Amino acid sequence: MNEDEKKVIEQIVINTVKKLISEKDNPNRVVLGISNKHIHLSKEDIETLFGKGHELTNIKDLKQPGQYAAKEMVKVIGPKGSFDKVRILGPARPESQIELSLTDARTIGIKAPVCESGKLEGTPGITLEGPCGTVTLTHGVIIALRHIHMPPSVAEQLGIKDKDWVTVETCGIRKTIFCNVLARVSDKFDYEMHLDTDEANAAGLNNNDYLKIIPNR
Amino acid sequence: MNEDEKKVIEQIVINTVKKLISEKDNPNRVVLGISNKHIHLSKEDIETLFGKGHELTNIKDLKQPGQYAAKEMVKVIGPKGSFDKVRILGPARPESQIELSLTDARTIGIKAPVCESGKLEGTPGITLEGPCGTVTLTHGVIIALRHIHMPPSVAEQLGIKDKDWVTVETCGIRKTIFCNVLARVSDKFDYEMHLDTDEANAAGLNNNDYLKIIPNR
Repeated sequence: MNEDEKKVIEQIVINTVKKLISEKDNPNRVVLGISNKHIHLSKEDIETLFGKGHELTNIKDLKQPGQYAAKEMVKVIGPKGSFDKVRILGPARPESQIELSLTDARTIGIKAPVCESGKLEGTPGITLEGPCGTVTLTHGVIIALRHIHMPPSVAEQLGIKDKDWVTVETCGIRKTIFCNVLARVSDKFDYEMHLDTDEANAAGLNNNDYLKIIPNR
Repeated sequence: MNEDEKKVIEQIVINTVKKLISEKDNPNRVVLGISNKHIHLSKEDIETLFGKGHELTNIKDLKQPGQYAAKEMVKVIGPKGSFDKVRILGPARPESQIELSLTDARTIGIKAPVCESGKLEGTPGITLEGPCGTVTLTHGVIIALRHIHMPPSVAEQLGIKDKDWVTVETCGIRKTIFCNVLARVSDKFDYEMHLDTDEANAAGLNNNDYLKIIPNR
């Protein structure tokens, strides 16, 4: 190889690395976190299920600051079936909330709406069974609306405000464009998109894949 | 109500019905059939599982001409779990094929590729258990590539050829655009799009919903 050829190759390498770095820093590139079925519990329900004074045990921090997977699991009982061990996510919340995929909901015979976390009015209830007791909730089961947690620094670069709807594109054989993705902007958030297992599997995605926010159509 | 007002209302009704009819006849409007996990069996495997000389019993015609849901079901056994009663679809095919969703495949610990029906080279095997015997396939498990069955009359109107890739849009809260949808054109087909349960649930769709083919992007 002569000096000219070496220079050409060097330039190709420099350009490729620059492109990769710029893509990595591109604010419309968002990492995926896939939500399996899980439960957020109120302090009161934690005590009923696990005993007076019980506190959740953090076994793994999640990407969103302060959020964690707890050691604790409970049985979720629907009209047509149940799931034996559903993970609790901490910390405790003001109200208990059960997040299922539509596949999960159909499996146990629950007709839950697709809605935003915390918007529990009119949602169906369910029974939870822990080692120390049972809780029958009158409401709290949702299919989580797909959403992106976004710190203000990223939102500003993208021209997105809290509660905006954005569109997100994947790649690969099951390339999919997810419309109606809720942007949730807060300085308490790390930049991360959440899909449930139905959505991730429909698009053939894995945890920590990167997705692309595209200008709204 | 005076005569003029009656005429205005009459015109609104006429226009609305015309619009609905024209939308109904629009060739880019395709009806959805959702595929739950199912099995196509070879004649030989039917006999091993259900006994010498056994033939499948048609309990329900499917939309695709000649295809039917059979009475027969078998147990599907993967490395990490099993499904007790998986429906056989008839008639018999040259090779046995098991179609799962990615959620199903993960549940029983099978790593199957997303691919076109009948393209079974390199796909993983699985064990099927029937009332009269067991078959251990060396290959045949797939995650079906999303596709549209299309008669030539529709394909011509849309300017689509057999094996073209098209893009399909849904509506509603979980509005989704499915890219890389395989068009399969044949005079043996009825016009119908097939998604699996992951894809349908990700987009919040039900059987017989209508989807829209959009010009390729």
